[in-house]
Amino acid sequence: MKPSFSIIDVRPFGAAPVDVRVVDGAIASIAPHERAAPPLAGDTVIDGQGALLLPGFVEGHTHLDKTTWGMPWYRNAVGPRLVDRIENERHWRATSGHDAARASRSLALAFLRAGTTRLRTHVDIDTDAGLAHLDGVLDTRAALADVLDLQIVAFPQSGMLERPGTRELLDAALAEGADVLGALDPAAIDGDPAASLDLTFALATRHQKPIDIHLHEPGELGAFTFGLLLDRVEAHGLHGRVVVSHAFCLGELPVAKRDALLERIARAGVALLTTAPASTPVPPLNAARAAGVTLFGGNDGIRDAWTPYGSPDMLERAMLIAMRYDLRRDDDLATALDLVTTEGARACAFERYGLAAGARADLVLVDAETVAHAITSRPPRRLVMANGTLIAADFSR
Amino acid sequence: MKPSFSIIDVRPFGAAPVDVRVVDGAIASIAPHERAAPPLAGDTVIDGQGALLLPGFVEGHTHLDKTTWGMPWYRNAVGPRLVDRIENERHWRATSGHDAARASRSLALAFLRAGTTRLRTHVDIDTDAGLAHLDGVLDTRAALADVLDLQIVAFPQSGMLERPGTRELLDAALAEGADVLGALDPAAIDGDPAASLDLTFALATRHQKPIDIHLHEPGELGAFTFGLLLDRVEAHGLHGRVVVSHAFCLGELPVAKRDALLERIARAGVALLTTAPASTPVPPLNAARAAGVTLFGGNDGIRDAWTPYGSPDMLERAMLIAMRYDLRRDDDLATALDLVTTEGARACAFERYGLAAGARADLVLVDAETVAHAITSRPPRRLVMANGTLIAADFSR
Repeated sequence: MKPSFSIIDVRPFGAAPVDVRVVDGAIASIAPHERAAPPLAGDTVIDGQGALLLPGFVEGHTHLDKTTWGMPWYRNAVGPRLVDRIENERHWRATSGHDAARASRSLALAFLRAGTTRLRTHVDIDTDAGLAHLDGVLDTRAALADVLDLQIVAFPQSGMLERPGTRELLDAALAEGADVLGALDPAAIDGDPAASLDLTFALATRHQKPIDIHLHEPGELGAFTFGLLLDRVEAHGLHGRVVVSHAFCLGELPVAKRDALLERIARAGVALLTTAPASTPVPPLNAARAAGVTLFGGNDGIRDAWTPYGSPDMLERAMLIAMRYDLRRDDDLATALDLVTTEGARACAFERYGLAAGARADLVLVDAETVAHAITSRPPRRLVMANGTLIAADFSR
Repeated sequence: MKPSFSIIDVRPFGAAPVDVRVVDGAIASIAPHERAAPPLAGDTVIDGQGALLLPGFVEGHTHLDKTTWGMPWYRNAVGPRLVDRIENERHWRATSGHDAARASRSLALAFLRAGTTRLRTHVDIDTDAGLAHLDGVLDTRAALADVLDLQIVAFPQSGMLERPGTRELLDAALAEGADVLGALDPAAIDGDPAASLDLTFALATRHQKPIDIHLHEPGELGAFTFGLLLDRVEAHGLHGRVVVSHAFCLGELPVAKRDALLERIARAGVALLTTAPASTPVPPLNAARAAGVTLFGGNDGIRDAWTPYGSPDMLERAMLIAMRYDLRRDDDLATALDLVTTEGARACAFERYGLAAGARADLVLVDAETVAHAITSRPPRRLVMANGTLIAADFSR
């Protein structure tokens, strides 16, 4: 049994003050602060002093295994093509003595301290690295199991078809504990979209695992591959079990074609992940939501051989998402927070999520007047609680 | 005579360690740390411990007068059109009791503490506000004159032609101390691009002031207006004295037409300001630089009735610029820093700028291995010096 807490005078999403009671890792009750009963004897009482209360954040797409977080700065001198980056990284992994356990743990802890309590990470599986990255991230998952809800995607970063043996490694990864089967550009990387998707869906079905596929393919090519994918979601009855990450093509299609595709995506229950890159077309926020498609957010890689950017602070990701979609009204910025909280939890099927009795006690307190204020100012965390355990607390003001 | 400093063991832009001597507000010498003479008696010695040395940052385009920085959070519920935002803001200014002196000083101090020592701000001049905002910002300029090099643009935020009396107010503003004449969308807002530009150029010529024009007009319309502007730069001989802010149109034109326009812009010595918005087309970085056009960076408004975004930390603006242009290599990220340092100083003609003997002692120290590391991590400032005066210093580590 974990300790009980009474966290008093906090404003969920900026609403009127409430008291939150936490018992054995779960939210036991949320009651208006003015009418709440006095804290129970034995509870640790935390006076929130009117701070903004948010649920623990959800990182929907990152690559913990290959970050350089907490290590010396990686000087990036890589060429501009996707294939340059893939090959550079494979070379870097092979020659740098990179330790996926240490790297993933360092970054996972940084996420936790900044308030992220649920996280989906894509882990490189290929014929060079074998399952070494998976083993490292499994170590991190075990070490942080009580506080961080960590989903592992077995991800063929170098493609699946081109390198014989990759499929067997993915098979082994799923048997060994990966939660989700990943995939990468069935046309542009694998060169045979139908065959690549067939293999992915067969493997996922055999292991009864969901799918999360990187789809960078642009415009009409991306739309074509997306159609093939939807055919297979329907054929395998994988409604609600598939995520398409990036889906740049949806930001490039003519509106009528895009909307028809969104409608099909909604029917198949496929969710879309965006990092909201400033330099690339992105799936349309309003049209996706209007069509009933779940759109959620993540960093992608953080300070690795691909990119110098990214931050374990999901309020910063919410800000970048909001800026990408030109959200300026307070109510619109609250939507950006949804993408790294409730929408992420729904898309990834993280359970017992949210600010409600019965949910896991994953809580964040910050000094901010509204959600928009929190997103734009990204204040230090006054409190982070993960599954009822205090990760950080600072009420020194 | 100001105090003298020996700032030892600092790495300019990440290069080998140097010692910087500051005498009476100026950089007196920069010498390799290993071979430098011992600090002179009487100097205040600051041991930089290998920190990264950057020049004071240049904010090329903001609106200090109407920020809510340091005040209660402004809840934005404004409609999406440009005219909604202009009218909402005029109403807010008239009813909120906003104090432009207090607001501008609060934000200017935040800029200083984060290392910005040169700043160009556009100040609203219109028939409702009159010269009240200018008076407020002139107060701030006077109060911070020793440390912040502040340029004031007299900016007709509500248009110039539509509201009789605006031209006279701009005339008065330039007489009263504004450094630059501003303007706004000669076609889309003023409705008569030739007449609007004629008035602007006549006024600037009469006062012998440079021009900085907001040009949001899209695509072919923007290109048309830009062409009319270039005609007048040539006719008035204002080479090197005109900035076009935003210039979204340059991100939308067919490449051949865009490059022909860039070539004309380079010949006219017109500089381009970008905030690198994630949701809007932007002038092309590489093509502009290849054509010899100066491109520099700024925030635009910070936390005001237009936008909840923006930060007085110009390293964050450099990061957003770098992300917008998808810069990932260390050497490319150094270019993003140029936009908020040397390029900004050149475009706005800030004098005695840079890390060289004879320049004003505007210095920033941060813990970072390279410029790219500083941009992506935006570390706390170890030291900020402005015109030889210590603004902030923290060597507690």
